[in-house]
Amino acid sequence: MKFCQQCASPIILKVPDGDDKPRHCCSDCDSIFYQNPKNVVGTLPVYEDKVLLCRRAIEPRIGKWTLPAGYMENGESSLNGAIRETIEEAGAEIIVASDSLYTLYNLPNINQVYMFFRGELANLDFAPGAESLEVQLFTEAEIPWKEIAFTVVKSTLELYFADLKSSHFPVRMFDVHHHKDTGITTNLISHSSVNISSKDNSSAP
Amino acid sequence: MKFCQQCASPIILKVPDGDDKPRHCCSDCDSIFYQNPKNVVGTLPVYEDKVLLCRRAIEPRIGKWTLPAGYMENGESSLNGAIRETIEEAGAEIIVASDSLYTLYNLPNINQVYMFFRGELANLDFAPGAESLEVQLFTEAEIPWKEIAFTVVKSTLELYFADLKSSHFPVRMFDVHHHKDTGITTNLISHSSVNISSKDNSSAP
Repeated sequence: MKFCQQCASPIILKVPDGDDKPRHCCSDCDSIFYQNPKNVVGTLPVYEDKVLLCRRAIEPRIGKWTLPAGYMENGESSLNGAIRETIEEAGAEIIVASDSLYTLYNLPNINQVYMFFRGELANLDFAPGAESLEVQLFTEAEIPWKEIAFTVVKSTLELYFADLKSSHFPVRMFDVHHHKDTGITTNLISHSSVNISSKDNSSAP
Repeated sequence: MKFCQQCASPIILKVPDGDDKPRHCCSDCDSIFYQNPKNVVGTLPVYEDKVLLCRRAIEPRIGKWTLPAGYMENGESSLNGAIRETIEEAGAEIIVASDSLYTLYNLPNINQVYMFFRGELANLDFAPGAESLEVQLFTEAEIPWKEIAFTVVKSTLELYFADLKSSHFPVRMFDVHHHKDTGITTNLISHSSVNISSKDNSSAP
């Protein structure tokens, strides 16, 4: 950011009065331009024992497989954005249940928050959109695990197939850190609570 | 947005090639400036049967009561941002459990996503920060329900005291719509699933 959006004067980095962090400030008018994380919203489309993946036609990770997802837009809710991205990237219509919110990832190193929702494919009329090379259904064994585009996608797929064994899909939030030397770490920071009454608890295995 | 941040030329609203929505585009260089929803992150600080509220020292809703919350910053996770806001606005240190993520609200009319986390006050050394007039603990009966600053705060407080009866705090996501004539509607769009095995199910009341 070099010039003020309001008056075209040069931008300087300085800590505004009452703030404690450097911001992009206009050198002439009083404008301050804050920068905040962006949300990326997507779905995990399911059909029988398979999940729908898209092969990326664009950078980054061109040619790798991913779940349909993209930037949440102004004027939409996160779920509506995820459904929109599923139509745009996979040509797929999904039906979501009342417990669709599934995984959330904070990525502080790249200023993003990912949110994935689970959904059932409404039909098999899917087709690659402009940002996808191909769209395909995969069983757990068929998934090209080494060709998955992003850590958050691999994590969500792994959780899904693990949770499928109990048909219980808790909401989980993770912090993902990109380290210079040691790669990427994904740490669980919240897991939705389960109601276990004393009676159920005592009879639990 | 009137001028390009990169080259100071005038900005025009147009639909870029391959897009389907008008964006802020530079009339000279190829820059496109996307605008996306911002996340507001906060906490519900609890002490015994009380919750901690802040009375706002700033607009909007100056003088009204709220939960500590503010814009998520670049470089932080949503939970860390919520803890930071709790320190800044309420001078309060909280301890979060492994199921801290509690409520999420999409506000498409104002391009925000709220996330609240539950936490226990670590001690009673709280004090108003620069953006608060006062900070105070309230039981459910003591809460100034008609003086709550925002719908999302009132909703989160109501859910908390309702959930407290079962000690079960599911993760819930809502869409909040601001209607011109009929006020604000808050619709549940996702509720974390609860694992009920067939054995537990049959013994449930």
